Amino acid sequence: MTITLNVSGMTCGHCEASVKGALKDLDGVQNVDVNLATGKVDVQYEEGKVTEAEMKEAVEEQGYDVA
Amino acid sequence: MTITLNVSGMTCGHCEASVKGALKDLDGVQNVDVNLATGKVDVQYEEGKVTEAEMKEAVEEQGYDVA
Repeated sequence: MTITLNVSGMTCGHCEASVKGALKDLDGVQNVDVNLATGKVDVQYEEGKVTEAEMKEAVEEQGYDVA
Repeated sequence: MTITLNVSGMTCGHCEASVKGALKDLDGVQNVDVNLATGKVDVQYEEGKVTEAEMKEAVEEQGYDVA
């Protein structure tokens, strides 16, 4: 399964790394692809192991907003 | 002694932390104050222990330009 999160506030490579790292730390997340220019974050995950709400929370904990 | 470096490319708190950390790691640097909005970085240092060139290099190694 793949979901796209719309994340705002990422401005640089460090931001990209924080968001990517936080999502990858979630059990069930298999791959994360961040587009810094558009704020679109594609998350590949195993259904039933992780929810969209948990992903959203992980990103927000890093200080970014998820639409 | 205090010197002000004009650093470009810092966009967020992570950038500020990298620049600050790199400068503070230099022997002779006592304090670093970063203004993210203006790019001005005030470095308080002990004369004779560290040079402006070394500071510039430390910032550039983090991926930012120093005017």
